[in-house]
Amino acid sequence: MTSARAYTATSARDPLVPGVVERRAVGPKDVLIEIAWAGICHSDIHTVRGDWGRVSYPLTVGHEIAGTVVGVGSEVTAHVVGDRVGVGCMVDSCRECPNCLSGNEQYCLRGFTDTYNGVDRDGRVTQGGYSSHIVVDEHFVLRVPDAIPFVTAAPLLCAGITTYSPLRHWKAGPGKKVAVVGLGGLGHMAVKLAHAMGAEVTVLSQSPRKREDGLRFGADHYHATSDPATFKRLANTFDLIVNTVSAPINLDGYLRLLALDGTIVNVGAPPEPVPVTLFTLFANRRSFAGSTIGGIAETQEMLDFCAEHGIAPEVEVIRADEINVAWQRVLDSDVRYRFVIDITTLAD
Amino acid sequence: MTSARAYTATSARDPLVPGVVERRAVGPKDVLIEIAWAGICHSDIHTVRGDWGRVSYPLTVGHEIAGTVVGVGSEVTAHVVGDRVGVGCMVDSCRECPNCLSGNEQYCLRGFTDTYNGVDRDGRVTQGGYSSHIVVDEHFVLRVPDAIPFVTAAPLLCAGITTYSPLRHWKAGPGKKVAVVGLGGLGHMAVKLAHAMGAEVTVLSQSPRKREDGLRFGADHYHATSDPATFKRLANTFDLIVNTVSAPINLDGYLRLLALDGTIVNVGAPPEPVPVTLFTLFANRRSFAGSTIGGIAETQEMLDFCAEHGIAPEVEVIRADEINVAWQRVLDSDVRYRFVIDITTLAD
Repeated sequence: MTSARAYTATSARDPLVPGVVERRAVGPKDVLIEIAWAGICHSDIHTVRGDWGRVSYPLTVGHEIAGTVVGVGSEVTAHVVGDRVGVGCMVDSCRECPNCLSGNEQYCLRGFTDTYNGVDRDGRVTQGGYSSHIVVDEHFVLRVPDAIPFVTAAPLLCAGITTYSPLRHWKAGPGKKVAVVGLGGLGHMAVKLAHAMGAEVTVLSQSPRKREDGLRFGADHYHATSDPATFKRLANTFDLIVNTVSAPINLDGYLRLLALDGTIVNVGAPPEPVPVTLFTLFANRRSFAGSTIGGIAETQEMLDFCAEHGIAPEVEVIRADEINVAWQRVLDSDVRYRFVIDITTLAD
Repeated sequence: MTSARAYTATSARDPLVPGVVERRAVGPKDVLIEIAWAGICHSDIHTVRGDWGRVSYPLTVGHEIAGTVVGVGSEVTAHVVGDRVGVGCMVDSCRECPNCLSGNEQYCLRGFTDTYNGVDRDGRVTQGGYSSHIVVDEHFVLRVPDAIPFVTAAPLLCAGITTYSPLRHWKAGPGKKVAVVGLGGLGHMAVKLAHAMGAEVTVLSQSPRKREDGLRFGADHYHATSDPATFKRLANTFDLIVNTVSAPINLDGYLRLLALDGTIVNVGAPPEPVPVTLFTLFANRRSFAGSTIGGIAETQEMLDFCAEHGIAPEVEVIRADEINVAWQRVLDSDVRYRFVIDITTLAD
């Protein structure tokens, strides 16, 4: 066991505080990572607040992790000391079910092991990346290509793959019209990625105030959803809508924007069930789907794609003692577009 | 104008009565059909009862029509007098929008013209197939292959194509596990068609009482959904679920039966919005879709497929004066599996 410095939640509502998490001893297949950067994802806050179920406190969250390998187990073949690596939302899965065997560990039929607030094979609750070190099985450790600035690698491990995977699965590319709902941490990555894939990209954001950003990220069009005319003007338009908004939206309104055989895929999850009108689905043979992160091989593919196309999230670097303020700003939608914690600022 | 004998609804609740509908004069592109058989679809009842919106009474319903060509317009090329033909749920569409031009008239962006209770180009309300004759543009008239017994052709025009189209679109075939929810008029066709396409077919019916029928129609498995164990046993199993039940179902329960990248497609529509839980969609990257009838070319393909594979609906032939009793039996789910009206019994 190794003690790692951390910034930790002690309850659903109290501010995070400096603390310590115990990491397991490095096993034969394990990689010990010294964390350099950790992104702040809205999921971190949802989890700590108990929005998504039971939480084991104290809990250290964070599943957008970039760091350097400082130790490897005797049987590790994929990584060596000194490698720049990343860890995302998963640190393990059953590796035996059909989904794991087909490279879709994110859909492991026994449930993958979350990077934090999950239950590890040894029965302990997993602890995430707001921390100086982490120990992860090599299969769940990604290579960060040299072309990706280290500080921008972290958000790719969740915001990047969560949008890359559905864009690839539903074949965003030349000739396809893709809309991105919400221009936040996930949305801005979806715009950059869909544009790089060659799709015609439209941002659907609540207000016009992020227009300039949206177009700069590669969107061809930008429409404010606060304007009811948007929904008339764009009826029957899109092949794919990626909805990055976790709050409940008027799904029927967005469904009507889909062209023949179009799909709206949610990557954010409101806790309440979403009502769907069948007659809206009937028109244009529309589909409503869900997608969650991506498989390990696909995550590596995404990192390589970002390196090749020079894609990086827009980040605002903070010190560890600014995490609580940053969380409030995330809740206020006051972030452009992802906070990344400089882990070297974690107090000894 | 020609007067045609008909069985007609005069209000939402009164029994249908014998009457007359005026058919337009045969135009250059029109086909005059002497109707032999008309299927009874649950939609007929929904429409007359006003479940789906405003109704113009008196109304003659029926959109599963099989008959013989007895007249053609001067420019008709597809049909000649004496041909056995069919008419389904559409009698016109704009023929200019991208969906019409791609052969998806059922998704016409201006709305196709329903065979009954629609508004025709001349502004008159369309009148359906519980009638001795109908005049339809040749584009919307299908050839009934000789191998299909005439009496069984009628239900193919709605129940057949409504299930054939999603089975084809979502690629039912060898190696695919397909479940059919509900074993009624649509469901029993879905089972026969999916089996003929080579899929492994499971019936999910409320009670075990249709088991023998389900297996006889080609299902490999039959499970009663009244048994909660069914939902545990079949979790993560199906590539495609075709839901033929119009009444509200526990969609989340059925979604959990889908394997990776599985889709549940509704061909029946409860009037109320259906609640969908996002976390259920996230697992296995599931989709919820709608599908409605099929295009004209696809409907012809379905008829040819049925002829080739010897597929026919199970029908119970009735006289015109038995329609009201038959409607009540449809409402009571007491039909195996489709009523077909012998139109020669319409009183003069």
